[in-house]
Amino acid sequence: MSDVRIDDLPVRDELRGKSPYGAPQLDVPVRLNTNENPYPLPEPLVERIAERVREAARNLNRYPDRDAVELRTKLAEYLTDTSGHEVGLANVWAANGSNEVIQQLLQTFGGPGRTAIGFEPSYSMHGLISRGTGTGWISGPRNEDFTVDLEAAEKAIAEHRPDVVFITTPNNPTGNAVPPETVLALYEAAQAAKAETAGAIVVVDEAYIEFSHGDSLLPLIEGRPNLVVSRTMSKAFGAAGLRLGYLAAHPAVVDAVQLVRLPYHLSAVTQATALAALEHTETLLGYVEQLKAERDRLVRELRATGYEVVESDANFVQFGRFEDAHTAWQKILDQGVLVRDNGIPGWLRVSAGTPEENDAFLDAVRALKKEQSQ
Amino acid sequence: MSDVRIDDLPVRDELRGKSPYGAPQLDVPVRLNTNENPYPLPEPLVERIAERVREAARNLNRYPDRDAVELRTKLAEYLTDTSGHEVGLANVWAANGSNEVIQQLLQTFGGPGRTAIGFEPSYSMHGLISRGTGTGWISGPRNEDFTVDLEAAEKAIAEHRPDVVFITTPNNPTGNAVPPETVLALYEAAQAAKAETAGAIVVVDEAYIEFSHGDSLLPLIEGRPNLVVSRTMSKAFGAAGLRLGYLAAHPAVVDAVQLVRLPYHLSAVTQATALAALEHTETLLGYVEQLKAERDRLVRELRATGYEVVESDANFVQFGRFEDAHTAWQKILDQGVLVRDNGIPGWLRVSAGTPEENDAFLDAVRALKKEQSQ
Repeated sequence: MSDVRIDDLPVRDELRGKSPYGAPQLDVPVRLNTNENPYPLPEPLVERIAERVREAARNLNRYPDRDAVELRTKLAEYLTDTSGHEVGLANVWAANGSNEVIQQLLQTFGGPGRTAIGFEPSYSMHGLISRGTGTGWISGPRNEDFTVDLEAAEKAIAEHRPDVVFITTPNNPTGNAVPPETVLALYEAAQAAKAETAGAIVVVDEAYIEFSHGDSLLPLIEGRPNLVVSRTMSKAFGAAGLRLGYLAAHPAVVDAVQLVRLPYHLSAVTQATALAALEHTETLLGYVEQLKAERDRLVRELRATGYEVVESDANFVQFGRFEDAHTAWQKILDQGVLVRDNGIPGWLRVSAGTPEENDAFLDAVRALKKEQSQ
Repeated sequence: MSDVRIDDLPVRDELRGKSPYGAPQLDVPVRLNTNENPYPLPEPLVERIAERVREAARNLNRYPDRDAVELRTKLAEYLTDTSGHEVGLANVWAANGSNEVIQQLLQTFGGPGRTAIGFEPSYSMHGLISRGTGTGWISGPRNEDFTVDLEAAEKAIAEHRPDVVFITTPNNPTGNAVPPETVLALYEAAQAAKAETAGAIVVVDEAYIEFSHGDSLLPLIEGRPNLVVSRTMSKAFGAAGLRLGYLAAHPAVVDAVQLVRLPYHLSAVTQATALAALEHTETLLGYVEQLKAERDRLVRELRATGYEVVESDANFVQFGRFEDAHTAWQKILDQGVLVRDNGIPGWLRVSAGTPEENDAFLDAVRALKKEQSQ
């Protein structure tokens, strides 16, 4: 049997010859490659998680709350408190990571015969999940400096008339935020291009918004039923292992994704753990402040060392330029520091770690710079 | 904004006018409607879950093991121990409920331009997830007595040449198992119909197999790379709230679904909880024995009361016949017992509960019979 391989199975044609998505998981001292939060959850929160999961486990023979009412209510409170814009249960939906949120949005508003656009380089899962849901993927343009080229973007929208538009702000992997007026202009362009049907859904992916110098675009959902803001607890809440993504939008959007969500998609232990984390929001947002300071230090020090750096509103920094980014990646790795090569020629991405991890990284890139200038 | 409704949004045409899947969740004394295991997890297991989740929470800032190696290894051991057929890590894949397993299989082997068949009435999510992944759905036939009509099924396969074939055994909602020779014949028919490509994937959905009088069909995967057995921890492990589904198949199938799975789809808390439950397999399978005895009692007593009952190998029983099943459902509910109306004319389904719950159910249906015969 061992001679049977993927391509011997009746897999879909577009999957032939492909390999699974994912960063290499290497066992090195300093891992700054997947934008994880370097701070473990504080011990009182760990205990609270154990306590809430213990309670949930006593009822684990029953299906979980299919609508995750308590969790969505608490997420709505968090969004209201941090954005100043009041949202409620009916505005919020949650799933297993923002990837599943995006998948549900594409199953609802994209899919076969429809298209989605993103402005690349950006979060590569937007394109991958589009293809996974049969949605045609359009790679929209960015400027040389990784800002969104509004004129070119509007032109692409008018030409392709996409059903779904992704705007990642702060952008991953480049780190820069998209100005609110650009988002609004793209929203209008997307509606105009699909005016004879019911418009287009614009997904503002704010996975890293808590690290931004600017504000969330959440208030823009008011009066714009086709605007969706997606969020995650992976980064600011230091809970990448939890897989909890969510969105805020008009209640009709929340109703609509329930037509495609797998029933009982969100386990009782996930709901319990997320609720525990939300009880400790203040402490966790304290870590975010430390990370922002460290991120700013990385930007300063990288520039001082002679690297080019993209302005960052996230918990990571894109830096370059390298004649051969992959060789540079390997040389940094040889010094025990794992960063990310996203395949953008000339650039690498480093996640902000603890001060000690960032020191190790800065030592490595200083050594690299010295070697290159010799 | 409240005047905007789902159909005002740019949702896919096939979603217009639809409502979300799911049994009504009513607050009644005896809930026997969703095939949940009525036995809460034993307290030592609850404590073990809290302990393992506490450990996992200490590392929650990191992404979970993307490949769930420890969990898949333990699931493989469980399958080997209970089926007598040796499988390993490479044969097993896990996801958030068997629904997500099925979705991943359809994204890999179904999708736009492809079709899937099931023999209905059967687990309705097979058709719903097919549609949700753009896979054309073919409703295959069953006999009057809910057994699979092999000749008609083979004919349907030859005619439609489906890419994916679902066989639910024991079948939900009817409870009866499909004989191994029927499964084998359908497997051969499915391969013959698609012989000029790479054959068809046959998914044997064994969600309820632990309750069966017969054996798992797991050993059939040997030498049949297109055969997939799907399983769940929701029923036999009493963990519907955990959302842990898994499959066993040729390693190439496991490789293939990794092309479509969302990265890090399975949270660290889900993996930790499932591992804890697997440590208590023996106790949990003890509850299964009690439920099988209760299920057999339900069959006997329903027949003694004058109902027709489909032979059951699951933890539920389909019974009838009613002139109007929905009215009967309501009359049973009026007595505080919630059963399931799956929309099969003349029939209702009851999950095996605790002895006390089953007594309450039997009292209700005896009273109903008395009323009807007056």
